[in-house]
Amino acid sequence: MPIFPAKYLIDVGIRVFEAAGVPEDESKLIADLLVRANMVGQDSHGVIRIIQYVDAIQKGKVKPGAQIEVVRETPSTALINGNWGFGQVVAKKSMEIAIQKAKENGISTVCAFNLYHIGRLADYTEMASKYNMIGVAMVNSTRMVAPHGGRERVLSTAPLSYAFPTGSGMPLILDMSTSACAEGKIRIALHKGEKLPLGYIIDGEGNLSTNPEDLYRGGAILPMGGEIAGHKGFGLAIVVEILAGILSGAGCAYENEKFGNGVFFQAINISNFMQPEEFKRRVDGLIKAVKSSKLRPGYSEILIPGELEYRMLEKRSKEGIYVPERTWKEIQAIAERVGINLLD
Amino acid sequence: MPIFPAKYLIDVGIRVFEAAGVPEDESKLIADLLVRANMVGQDSHGVIRIIQYVDAIQKGKVKPGAQIEVVRETPSTALINGNWGFGQVVAKKSMEIAIQKAKENGISTVCAFNLYHIGRLADYTEMASKYNMIGVAMVNSTRMVAPHGGRERVLSTAPLSYAFPTGSGMPLILDMSTSACAEGKIRIALHKGEKLPLGYIIDGEGNLSTNPEDLYRGGAILPMGGEIAGHKGFGLAIVVEILAGILSGAGCAYENEKFGNGVFFQAINISNFMQPEEFKRRVDGLIKAVKSSKLRPGYSEILIPGELEYRMLEKRSKEGIYVPERTWKEIQAIAERVGINLLD
Repeated sequence: MPIFPAKYLIDVGIRVFEAAGVPEDESKLIADLLVRANMVGQDSHGVIRIIQYVDAIQKGKVKPGAQIEVVRETPSTALINGNWGFGQVVAKKSMEIAIQKAKENGISTVCAFNLYHIGRLADYTEMASKYNMIGVAMVNSTRMVAPHGGRERVLSTAPLSYAFPTGSGMPLILDMSTSACAEGKIRIALHKGEKLPLGYIIDGEGNLSTNPEDLYRGGAILPMGGEIAGHKGFGLAIVVEILAGILSGAGCAYENEKFGNGVFFQAINISNFMQPEEFKRRVDGLIKAVKSSKLRPGYSEILIPGELEYRMLEKRSKEGIYVPERTWKEIQAIAERVGINLLD
Repeated sequence: MPIFPAKYLIDVGIRVFEAAGVPEDESKLIADLLVRANMVGQDSHGVIRIIQYVDAIQKGKVKPGAQIEVVRETPSTALINGNWGFGQVVAKKSMEIAIQKAKENGISTVCAFNLYHIGRLADYTEMASKYNMIGVAMVNSTRMVAPHGGRERVLSTAPLSYAFPTGSGMPLILDMSTSACAEGKIRIALHKGEKLPLGYIIDGEGNLSTNPEDLYRGGAILPMGGEIAGHKGFGLAIVVEILAGILSGAGCAYENEKFGNGVFFQAINISNFMQPEEFKRRVDGLIKAVKSSKLRPGYSEILIPGELEYRMLEKRSKEGIYVPERTWKEIQAIAERVGINLLD
């Protein structure tokens, strides 16, 4: 059961990516963000992706070192062609442009197309929060989610993220799929041989299922909200498909050839509305009010968005990151394919 | 069982508001929007509000004819003090400013504070869609919703709306609360003596309840998402509280004295990203893909956001608007209080 310090895994990522032909700065950024996903407990976006990414390079699906092009631009907007570079590279650059424009013009919207998987949205919205801005991100990808009432995959899990600076220095970050759950959760249950809670997925006939295998046998993930409010999760997924898939030009999940992410980013400069210190004080007040609510039976505390991730970050900073045996073997194999020998 | 044509109800609204001291143009706007809510089937935001609004005027909670002040402004942002004017008046003006700024600068964000109830968010986001823009609206109000895991009211139902132009001329409009349901639904069930679906509300002890009375005996509405995804609805409510309540300066739902709406609006000019005709063609394609998905057992069709409202609008345009006996009697009584005699 291999447990590694973060630094070691970052180093592994850098070595493997560089050997696969990724420029040094890109290798470092991608490895950093993958390991950060592990650190905060989102293992489905962590080092397991090294395998997929190297494979994508070798198949020509992603182009290391691709030039990022600003296709259209106004003082507060930009449309970016990633030319099939790594999602992390294109997304970081896109949010930097959004932040710069919001510094100069109050707010900004930046869309990007032709880029590979960007990973966790929180990494980008958090960037804006460090400049006393509100960061917004929406992303679409491949089809995985049925519309409310339907049984076919038409929409992506269509995640969105908002980050707000707080007085504590730890931004308040919401990062969620608009589906009942992210695909990573189903895949993890599948690998562990566990059942799913009722309401995550349907089978190919459209019936609720607790068996993760059903997703990969013609099933679909449900929109968030369940029977009584699934039309809302579905509505939000439509919003994300339009902003991240259509407005960006990247394409919608239902379009067959679609892969990679379509990106919609915003940065909102708080100082155009109020003093950032006052804003942070008020966000702290809201957090306090929420957390001090009396509890429902069966709950032991109220967690604000991002709180679990911060706790995991602290824990794994001390204890290291557990990588499942099977994942580690696959990483070793892909490393070997590019000429890197990772010791057991 | 009184059934009225829309025109008659608008006329009633105008007469009553004018008699209560509301300027002619404001009376017309408010009456139009209330009746429009009835037309699309959102009776909880319809003429029933005439009673509450006249009462609010008489109690000094809302100031007819209030001057709207732009407190802070940049080419792409504005902060607006409504000086406790009618929400409809302040919100319409705020979205007009947002549209103008997005025309000149690509995108805009406008926040407003010190205003009364604005009604349906869709009315404002739809305005932007008519200019080949995407309209965004978020609003907070009084506390009604428990945080995920909590049993006390801390958040508002925190609705949000997005409107997108389409090729058909009918914009695609999402207008939803981030709670399991809007308060109007509970109130209607209460008046009809009906039970609620499990998952809408909890009682004062935090237990799920199907009895609408429990909401008004110390209970709370739940965030959307249910047990498996309630943290997501809760997260979205936090986002709306921060953008519409904090960034606007209006205050959060948990703050005791809070009433009226805090407002966050955006307009995004599509032509900075792609040709509006191309955008509409692609949105039409998404709608078609979604609607043609095979159905789940128990569902007879897939409804896109806003579709039910359009159908109701057509139906009520022909058949008129049914106003419950009790509501009509109360409207007659409030009309009489301001010296207007409405015939039975």
